[in-house]
Amino acid sequence: MDAIPLLTLKRLPRYLEALYRFKRAGLKMVSATKIAIFTDVHMTQVRKDLSFTGVVGTPKIGHKIDELIMAIEKCLNWNDVTSCFLVGVGHLGKALMGYQELHKKGLRIIAAFDSKPELAGTYYQGIQIYPMEKFTNLLSRLHVHIGILTVPSESAQDVADTMVANGVIAIWNFTPVHLALPDDIIVENVDMSSSLAVLSRRVAEKLHVENPPFK
Amino acid sequence: MDAIPLLTLKRLPRYLEALYRFKRAGLKMVSATKIAIFTDVHMTQVRKDLSFTGVVGTPKIGHKIDELIMAIEKCLNWNDVTSCFLVGVGHLGKALMGYQELHKKGLRIIAAFDSKPELAGTYYQGIQIYPMEKFTNLLSRLHVHIGILTVPSESAQDVADTMVANGVIAIWNFTPVHLALPDDIIVENVDMSSSLAVLSRRVAEKLHVENPPFK
Repeated sequence: MDAIPLLTLKRLPRYLEALYRFKRAGLKMVSATKIAIFTDVHMTQVRKDLSFTGVVGTPKIGHKIDELIMAIEKCLNWNDVTSCFLVGVGHLGKALMGYQELHKKGLRIIAAFDSKPELAGTYYQGIQIYPMEKFTNLLSRLHVHIGILTVPSESAQDVADTMVANGVIAIWNFTPVHLALPDDIIVENVDMSSSLAVLSRRVAEKLHVENPPFK
Repeated sequence: MDAIPLLTLKRLPRYLEALYRFKRAGLKMVSATKIAIFTDVHMTQVRKDLSFTGVVGTPKIGHKIDELIMAIEKCLNWNDVTSCFLVGVGHLGKALMGYQELHKKGLRIIAAFDSKPELAGTYYQGIQIYPMEKFTNLLSRLHVHIGILTVPSESAQDVADTMVANGVIAIWNFTPVHLALPDDIIVENVDMSSSLAVLSRRVAEKLHVENPPFK
């Protein structure tokens, strides 16, 4: 399996969203130019990105939408359902446990862990929640390679270390902590703090420019 | 208020997490080098980023941790609490409504909207949920500038358009849709789909390399 460039990977879901929308609108064929306009990516880039999916369009006619959707989903491994587990059943953890999109996108949470004793043995969205004491034992038995990290910042590094020590090769990290892990571990960060930082500052800059405070 | 570069803004919360951790460990002073090691950012970059906060460290001694925390929080506008509203009370919307971190980071959700009739008039985490019919009317009365978008993909663009038509200047977009909006609107995307795409593909690439399929 050839490595696809990071930025191409990040753009592929955006193309998919556009393709789903074209399909819902009743279209059968689409040009790279139309995808480009809709996703705000330059058409040369769209063509280059799509070339990684192996699908070849017909000049002046474009791509079959269904074919392109299937090719991109295959590229993103959304057809194979991969099992994973989640640690930290707080608000965010629960949101992910109930998030239908995950399953559609090839990720299935088969177990959850939390340190709160009152959660042990309960189910949420059909997923069993285990106490942290069972973490190491179950990890090695489940043969699961992907862990979702939604614990408080303070315990993020410790939990990540335990994951890696028990065979996890990839961590989807929703904490704002920069995890220090071996180089061969795949870490994908969903950093809401960074995003909120940009948002808050830009809004403050804008409101101050438009309504300068009195000196 | 001077504009801070995007990448600096995105790194500041990471420094903050490190500083909170140093503080919890009982430290009073910290060097840019220590922050660099901990956050995996080059120390020259750390120094450059910190210079935007206006705090000047003492050579060979470093920065007072408390002072640096305050300066970064001020930079990120986390001291002023800004009101916002949320549209789309699904799993993700509820997670954000219950997410204590938001409030700490200067964002307060004062109202939520959803199209499901059974949610209208109910409360979640102390926040009232209004029906979409009241959206336009309430938006113009609340004078809120920031909207959080957690609706299904199909309605993302429509809801965003209505937000902008009613005075919203910034949208925190949790949908995978690339919103087409006027240039002066601030849009911050938390794109879990992109992140999951990278994660899934990298894991597939890795497992295929380590266990090549039989031909």
